[in-house]
Amino acid sequence: MNKSSMKFNTIGVITKPQVEPARKTLHALFSFLKNKNCHVILDQQIPDNIISSALNNNIADKFESASRKTIGEKCDLVIVVGGDGTILNAVRSLSHVHVPLVGINVGRLGFLADISPDKLEESLEEILDGSYREEQRFLLEVKVLRDNKVIFEADAFNDAVVHIRDIARMIEFETRINDEFVNHQRADGIVVATPTGSTAYALSAGGPLLHATLDAITLVPISPHTLSSRPLVVHANSQIDILICDTKEGIAQVTCDGHASTDVHVGDHIKINRKEDRITLLHPKQHNHYEILREKLGWSEHT
Amino acid sequence: MNKSSMKFNTIGVITKPQVEPARKTLHALFSFLKNKNCHVILDQQIPDNIISSALNNNIADKFESASRKTIGEKCDLVIVVGGDGTILNAVRSLSHVHVPLVGINVGRLGFLADISPDKLEESLEEILDGSYREEQRFLLEVKVLRDNKVIFEADAFNDAVVHIRDIARMIEFETRINDEFVNHQRADGIVVATPTGSTAYALSAGGPLLHATLDAITLVPISPHTLSSRPLVVHANSQIDILICDTKEGIAQVTCDGHASTDVHVGDHIKINRKEDRITLLHPKQHNHYEILREKLGWSEHT
Amino acid sequence: MNKSSMKFNTIGVITKPQVEPARKTLHALFSFLKNKNCHVILDQQIPDNIISSALNNNIADKFESASRKTIGEKCDLVIVVGGDGTILNAVRSLSHVHVPLVGINVGRLGFLADISPDKLEESLEEILDGSYREEQRFLLEVKVLRDNKVIFEADAFNDAVVHIRDIARMIEFETRINDEFVNHQRADGIVVATPTGSTAYALSAGGPLLHATLDAITLVPISPHTLSSRPLVVHANSQIDILICDTKEGIAQVTCDGHASTDVHVGDHIKINRKEDRITLLHPKQHNHYEILREKLGWSEHT
Amino acid sequence: MNKSSMKFNTIGVITKPQVEPARKTLHALFSFLKNKNCHVILDQQIPDNIISSALNNNIADKFESASRKTIGEKCDLVIVVGGDGTILNAVRSLSHVHVPLVGINVGRLGFLADISPDKLEESLEEILDGSYREEQRFLLEVKVLRDNKVIFEADAFNDAVVHIRDIARMIEFETRINDEFVNHQRADGIVVATPTGSTAYALSAGGPLLHATLDAITLVPISPHTLSSRPLVVHANSQIDILICDTKEGIAQVTCDGHASTDVHVGDHIKINRKEDRITLLHPKQHNHYEILREKLGWSEHT
Repeated sequence: MNKSSMKFNTIGVITKPQVEPARKTLHALFSFLKNKNCHVILDQQIPDNIISSALNNNIADKFESASRKTIGEKCDLVIVVGGDGTILNAVRSLSHVHVPLVGINVGRLGFLADISPDKLEESLEEILDGSYREEQRFLLEVKVLRDNKVIFEADAFNDAVVHIRDIARMIEFETRINDEFVNHQRADGIVVATPTGSTAYALSAGGPLLHATLDAITLVPISPHTLSSRPLVVHANSQIDILICDTKEGIAQVTCDGHASTDVHVGDHIKINRKEDRITLLHPKQHNHYEILREKLGWSEHT
Repeated sequence: MNKSSMKFNTIGVITKPQVEPARKTLHALFSFLKNKNCHVILDQQIPDNIISSALNNNIADKFESASRKTIGEKCDLVIVVGGDGTILNAVRSLSHVHVPLVGINVGRLGFLADISPDKLEESLEEILDGSYREEQRFLLEVKVLRDNKVIFEADAFNDAVVHIRDIARMIEFETRINDEFVNHQRADGIVVATPTGSTAYALSAGGPLLHATLDAITLVPISPHTLSSRPLVVHANSQIDILICDTKEGIAQVTCDGHASTDVHVGDHIKINRKEDRITLLHPKQHNHYEILREKLGWSEHT
Repeated sequence: MNKSSMKFNTIGVITKPQVEPARKTLHALFSFLKNKNCHVILDQQIPDNIISSALNNNIADKFESASRKTIGEKCDLVIVVGGDGTILNAVRSLSHVHVPLVGINVGRLGFLADISPDKLEESLEEILDGSYREEQRFLLEVKVLRDNKVIFEADAFNDAVVHIRDIARMIEFETRINDEFVNHQRADGIVVATPTGSTAYALSAGGPLLHATLDAITLVPISPHTLSSRPLVVHANSQIDILICDTKEGIAQVTCDGHASTDVHVGDHIKINRKEDRITLLHPKQHNHYEILREKLGWSEHT
Repeated sequence: MNKSSMKFNTIGVITKPQVEPARKTLHALFSFLKNKNCHVILDQQIPDNIISSALNNNIADKFESASRKTIGEKCDLVIVVGGDGTILNAVRSLSHVHVPLVGINVGRLGFLADISPDKLEESLEEILDGSYREEQRFLLEVKVLRDNKVIFEADAFNDAVVHIRDIARMIEFETRINDEFVNHQRADGIVVATPTGSTAYALSAGGPLLHATLDAITLVPISPHTLSSRPLVVHANSQIDILICDTKEGIAQVTCDGHASTDVHVGDHIKINRKEDRITLLHPKQHNHYEILREKLGWSEHT
């Protein structure tokens, strides 16, 4: 196969901030891409010495470093080397463009970074050749309104979590979906998660596993005072509104993907809805969502 | 409002087998429909004495008794007086036709029978006048295959439950969704539920609440041996296949809506998918799904 | 019955800081105690105007105000008027003495404050007469050790909670019981609760209900990462040691009864064991622990 | 060490009914016991050919076969080779005598059969030498009363389970503890478990882990209709009474240790209390209850 027959020609590479554990995998990736004669744009954060050692001090013409912005504009495929957190990070910077992402895990298998380093060449060969499984995933758009003004805005690929900072203080909040009153809850907080996020914090809090491509959002209460509280699953088109009613003199917080966060006060509304832009993930043909679940959740255990 | 302006003209009435507790509500309903000058077809199971006493021994010209089949063919609206079980029963006999259903509860508020008898006139007035909230719900089509032959077939509006009959014997089964292997489980069984059924048995087994109109199916393991088992939520288009691997010398069973059931053996496949026909439920305009959840699940409790 | 035949002669009265909602109940209590000719020592926090208006501006000889310390030393019974929080507060100041406590609830029925104001006279009559149900409950002794030095020390009647302050950061910790390694967990935290506390925060986190007088402690993980984590119940004599392994750059905290708290760092040990002093609660003869559970947890609901 | 210094001299050996998988371990055990010059009484169920091949067709003088009854009477230690089920079986036949038990697992590590075959010599050497960890465990005494007559009686080392046979029918029952009414439940059933049984069926049903030597019993509802139902933990001295109120025309059953069972009718009382006789289990000195939990429940997983 030569480059002209390849489906993707300009390839971005993004990796995790602590680049050392990824070094070996990056080496393999760079060799592969050089052999393929791809035009490669590396995230500026990747140190030069990693690049040059990978290419035997012989930086290929077709390798350049650039900002995430440029990667988003010029690449027709972005390869992310790291863990699920690295992909979350890449998604945040690339969600407005429509470049597909591929994840190669470093360390352990991830839900998102699902290509194992020892299958790197084989899997990428297939994908560059146009043989892959494409998956659309959505993000949440999260806004905090105070006195009808937006005081905070962030995207969430996994989840938006409303939570009290001080465990001794419960939070009280009201949830509305499409302007319909759902309930008034006293709890440590609530997780509003995409299907992608249903394997993350929402799962620890007792939520269900949503199939990755389901058009649905789950709302999972955290340590609810009312024992009959249960996780809700609603359509992804739903307009979710969480009104902070009481924080018992404690400080409540909204956190998106465990990353962007802001304090919220009594009277603040947290408005959550699906973002229009989608994320495209590419997987090898033989990718199986359930295989990853089995592996990550220990379902294959023999006990 | 006179009849000619009404949206629905031929009205079927179905009630529960133990008709006595429904007598008062049927009286009110019959009077209302007579005043409206509707053409009314009563389920044959309703005893004559209830009808005649309701109409002061003065059976209206426009009231007749007929089979469920005739009701399905001739009516453009069916009013069900009873509990959720009565509606499940009506749905089973009417799922192939497309007549909309309205539920009036007798006794306690139901998830499906959501019009309170004391709002009967007011709510039906609105609905007959064409002012209502329409909701499409789906059923499951459940088949048991043995040696590639269908040995059992039933519809389920709530759920299909695969379960061991003898508590001392676990069942082992494998689940596949769209031909992808999901997992091998040892458990007391599994519930496969529609959104409608997510408030029924699936909820007791630890499943999430799916919004009534969500295009999704939930699979909830019952007392699973693997502690990391969690409820799954998948798209309603999914082809679900449960293969019985071992019944530990016990007898396993499939039950649809707690009604139709059959024994299943090692090697049997239970195939479940969405039925093409939908059920149309009509609700008063001010109907609120979450209000019923709050009421039924005790969320409004003050503790 | 005259005073000489009464089992208790010097009665302390403690109430909640926001005394207003308790005013009516305090009036009734003061009248009752005056009629009984009891020697009454009121908590200094109770404002004079409440006392004088309760006694028609006619402060009885036998009524005096004093500190908690004096109440603990001189009284042979302490009546607490308020909610469960007021009793927790009273217990903290009186745990070293062995004076029995009686709780009269203000507002809602409590697990601890279980005498309803409208049964105040009847119930206290019985109790003063020596006809009651006595219950011993224990507290936890909680210490934080840093570099082998105790840097924090508090009692807990309900629970000691180790928790991360920032929801975006999981905590990692190791639990040892009687010097045996139990497990290494990643979670939002862990609740270590007495039977008394098993109806409080531990319950919201998914813990079991321990009978109030059981000699046991429960350890309940909060939103654990490992899905097979389950609440543990161990003997009340157990020496519990929680070692903070990682806080992911966040701040972890230990909180006792939602009241006393301190930050904890990586390497800190939280040592928890049963306190030697017991709390004695008196209940009316017909007191039924399960009746309160049914009432508070909505088990009597008719759904 | 010679025999005279050994703590145990007459050793019983019990194994599982399907003896083949245990053959290798039995060989090792028999050689070991022959070398130790122990007097060995083998369960009659063990086929001669296994014994003779283990001893090189050279049946030792000190090896004999006998009934469980004789084993119970003559032995001062019984070694059980199999899984937890084999130990449950041995306990049922030996609970009235006070001979200590040691469990060697065949296949997988068990909660009860906790000595691995590859540590057989080492562990037994220690134990015969008197160096071991002794653990007392209790059984439940289960009786079904109909019209005040005992119609069924069995012991349970793990649990007594009250359950409906037909999943389409809920059971209604009332629980009383020490004659105090606890609650009225609608559910698929209830598990009443010892600490030993808290790692078995009760765990699948959502119960807590009780430390093996805790003086407590847990009551765990199975798929309860009331969502605020929670597992209870009560003192092991409690008198538990479950009254069958309604079986919805289905058949309810009581099953002890998944073994002995009987049908129960409306009006039947299931009375459960601790049996006076205890079971003594011996473990190697370095035995750690939590290590087995970690292993069996997958807590050591790295996900």
